[in-house]
Amino acid sequence: MKVIPYQKVKEEQAEQGAHEVTVRWLITEDDGAENFAMRYFTVAPQGFTPYHSHDWEHGVFILDGQGVVRIGDQTKELVKGIVIFIPPNVKHQFTNPSTHPLRFLCMIPNRDTS
Amino acid sequence: MKVIPYQKVKEEQAEQGAHEVTVRWLITEDDGAENFAMRYFTVAPQGFTPYHSHDWEHGVFILDGQGVVRIGDQTKELVKGIVIFIPPNVKHQFTNPSTHPLRFLCMIPNRDTS
Repeated sequence: MKVIPYQKVKEEQAEQGAHEVTVRWLITEDDGAENFAMRYFTVAPQGFTPYHSHDWEHGVFILDGQGVVRIGDQTKELVKGIVIFIPPNVKHQFTNPSTHPLRFLCMIPNRDTS
Repeated sequence: MKVIPYQKVKEEQAEQGAHEVTVRWLITEDDGAENFAMRYFTVAPQGFTPYHSHDWEHGVFILDGQGVVRIGDQTKELVKGIVIFIPPNVKHQFTNPSTHPLRFLCMIPNRDTS
């Protein structure tokens, strides 16, 4: 069992290829979560995640801010309350062209997702 | 791929035993999500979910409002930004004693969770 404000979870620089992006691993295998992980991303103004793909899916919920997601050959504008499902092996990128932080939750399955 | 405002997802009455609770199934197997489902719950003022347990876990993020979660023999106050992990087979209940809706995301693994 875990009940904690997200702000108490360590904020780390996101993966290589990301620019001005941080991640908090809110729920992980360390909590006993065997099936999925919950991460909290913050993309600073002018920041972006790498345009990449991998063989696991993403489930995303936009918490705050504005941005753009590129998925394959499509781009979509993001605001609070947008839900995104990105299937495995589809290239995707989050960018923040705004002047405020873009914040979202991103769920992944618990597998080898390094 | 799916990019949709959560408000566009059908709002349904939650499971039996819940009082004044609705659920939106934001991401499911129908989207190709094989490993986890993302649901959006709204607990109206004075509403509550059943005090129950099951053999799958919950990953929760409080989006808005105030409430209380009872997990086993503990109770914790809830506000925006609280993260909760409830392991399998632990009794739990969400209640909303406030005068505004309590809103949260709740993740579950994709198994037989009916």
